[in-house]
Amino acid sequence: MSTYQLEIRGLTCGHCVASVTEEISEIAGVTTVNVELNAGKEAVSVATVEADAEVSEAAFADAVDEAGYELVSVSA
Amino acid sequence: MSTYQLEIRGLTCGHCVASVTEEISEIAGVTTVNVELNAGKEAVSVATVEADAEVSEAAFADAVDEAGYELVSVSA
Repeated sequence: MSTYQLEIRGLTCGHCVASVTEEISEIAGVTTVNVELNAGKEAVSVATVEADAEVSEAAFADAVDEAGYELVSVSA
Repeated sequence: MSTYQLEIRGLTCGHCVASVTEEISEIAGVTTVNVELNAGKEAVSVATVEADAEVSEAAFADAVDEAGYELVSVSA
């Protein structure tokens, strides 16, 4: 089980949280996603992601981009 | 054909626009909804609504409330 902390820029509301949660949940191996919303176009929110397989930063970046936001950093 | 201008507080992103547009579109008589987003929790966006029947302010208020926002004013 791996846990990742993602910093994501640009979430402004609960709809944004739902959208990015859905995209991250679709990554192979991801089991849970919890987003703590810090609302604002330039604000950075933190997502805690648990996975039962290793997930690459590129996979997270693609998912966040797909939802329309910017992945600032990933730490394991 | 009636045209209404609604001031709506609290839309922060395109998801919010989609959500409130969907609720207003469900009001009987409403034919088109166009929202000009002024993003922000306290900011006021303007929706232009066309309808082929009269729509009460209460009906608009209910729809906006259902979407999770605040109807500030309606002008016909």
